Amino acid sequence: MAARHSSTREYGAALCRATNDWQVDEWYEKDSRLRCGIVVPMEDAELAADEIDRVAGHPAFVQVLLVARTSAPLGDRRYWKIYEAAARHDLPVGVHFGGGARGVPVTAAGWPSYYLEDHAVMSTAFQAHVASLVFSGIFEKLPALRFAMIEGGFAWLPSLTWRMDQQWHRFGSETPQVRRRPSEYVAERMWFTTQPIEEPHRAADLLTVFDHLGGVDKIMFSTDYPHWDFDSPVHAFQVRIPQDQREKIYTENARAFYRLPARATHQN
Amino acid sequence: MAARHSSTREYGAALCRATNDWQVDEWYEKDSRLRCGIVVPMEDAELAADEIDRVAGHPAFVQVLLVARTSAPLGDRRYWKIYEAAARHDLPVGVHFGGGARGVPVTAAGWPSYYLEDHAVMSTAFQAHVASLVFSGIFEKLPALRFAMIEGGFAWLPSLTWRMDQQWHRFGSETPQVRRRPSEYVAERMWFTTQPIEEPHRAADLLTVFDHLGGVDKIMFSTDYPHWDFDSPVHAFQVRIPQDQREKIYTENARAFYRLPARATHQN
Repeated sequence: MAARHSSTREYGAALCRATNDWQVDEWYEKDSRLRCGIVVPMEDAELAADEIDRVAGHPAFVQVLLVARTSAPLGDRRYWKIYEAAARHDLPVGVHFGGGARGVPVTAAGWPSYYLEDHAVMSTAFQAHVASLVFSGIFEKLPALRFAMIEGGFAWLPSLTWRMDQQWHRFGSETPQVRRRPSEYVAERMWFTTQPIEEPHRAADLLTVFDHLGGVDKIMFSTDYPHWDFDSPVHAFQVRIPQDQREKIYTENARAFYRLPARATHQN
Repeated sequence: MAARHSSTREYGAALCRATNDWQVDEWYEKDSRLRCGIVVPMEDAELAADEIDRVAGHPAFVQVLLVARTSAPLGDRRYWKIYEAAARHDLPVGVHFGGGARGVPVTAAGWPSYYLEDHAVMSTAFQAHVASLVFSGIFEKLPALRFAMIEGGFAWLPSLTWRMDQQWHRFGSETPQVRRRPSEYVAERMWFTTQPIEEPHRAADLLTVFDHLGGVDKIMFSTDYPHWDFDSPVHAFQVRIPQDQREKIYTENARAFYRLPARATHQN
């Protein structure tokens, strides 16, 4: 986090370079099943793009990794050079729970009082990013650009896309760069992860959420292990999910999104 | 808005007094079917409480009216004297779309670029307030306190309460003032309005949203007329809603919430 947001930009960039080299040396080189995200000094897009260009060719890296708490919503032009670099190397961009920028409160109504409150509304930063990315027009500019929203949940997504479509239908003349319904860009370019998986009071309602999302093709399992609130793959789902959906969520969607090799056939 | 947030506190309070008197003289006195919200200088809770005490006895006023974009999430103690005054007079608190506080960006990740973006994520301020009010413990302290979240939507509410319950279950020791599941306070103390009503891509999905909310007992029709995006009572719903639910949404819930007289029997 310090590396991404350091106010000494060159120091932040150096920390990111060191972190990325360490990821390769200490993790990927020791077990190539592991893959890494390119950590970048995201609040300086030129330095961030330099770092992407430096390491993107290495097979260890499968995405550019940003954080959710930023100095502006992610559609802002200050970040576009990051997206151009990611698209240049055909890498998706992951946006991960966490972060923080100087002078920017972590809710849409100022600073919260409790960690629980802070934690409960982290998803609202992701909502701001979804709206911002779509309305910015960046998806028209960069047809290869894809995002994964990591650890921000997804049960709020249908209501946001409904609202965005409705407002765009009435007032889309403000954003001529948005040529199609906002929900179409979301459906084609954005993936979401399960941790923390939403746990409806009636567990089966999760299936309705999947239905409102248009299916589970964009949902990827994530664990956040070893954090206190991590999801175990054994216990994450409180409801029985059909086997084909489980396969997509646990493995197939991530393999496709990150261009990972197909699962080896199990040998008995 | 200026009245609520004026940095010259006494001037803001005077503007609120004038606005409230004007509401009575120009609207309620001319048509007593109309009711009013008490406008208050909300960023100074003592002055706000003075104004509530001044006019709460007048039958024109049925709620204290705040705005959604504030200097802190609404559970913050800086606002508690407002809630104490509202509860003292058995008035609910309405939180309305809009507002703005100095130095507080309107998303959880800084300032947006477009009006459409700003508009689409206004609901995130409401999400911050729901979490903040619940975790603050104010509902335990003031058993009569009730809220209406006005023009912030509600389709996002199930996912928020699921998340709050889940985190509280694991980490509730941080907030001993919260004695029950967060969703129980929401279910008992918070109402929501329809404008802008969420419009799912498949219109019938709105009924599923109602189901996830536990029914429509806390949903009140609102129109926002004459704004550009107002909902007409004739066209607001794209799906056929059962008659008993329509009655609740269009009239009964608001009559109960605001303690209005029962509807006069229609005379042919």
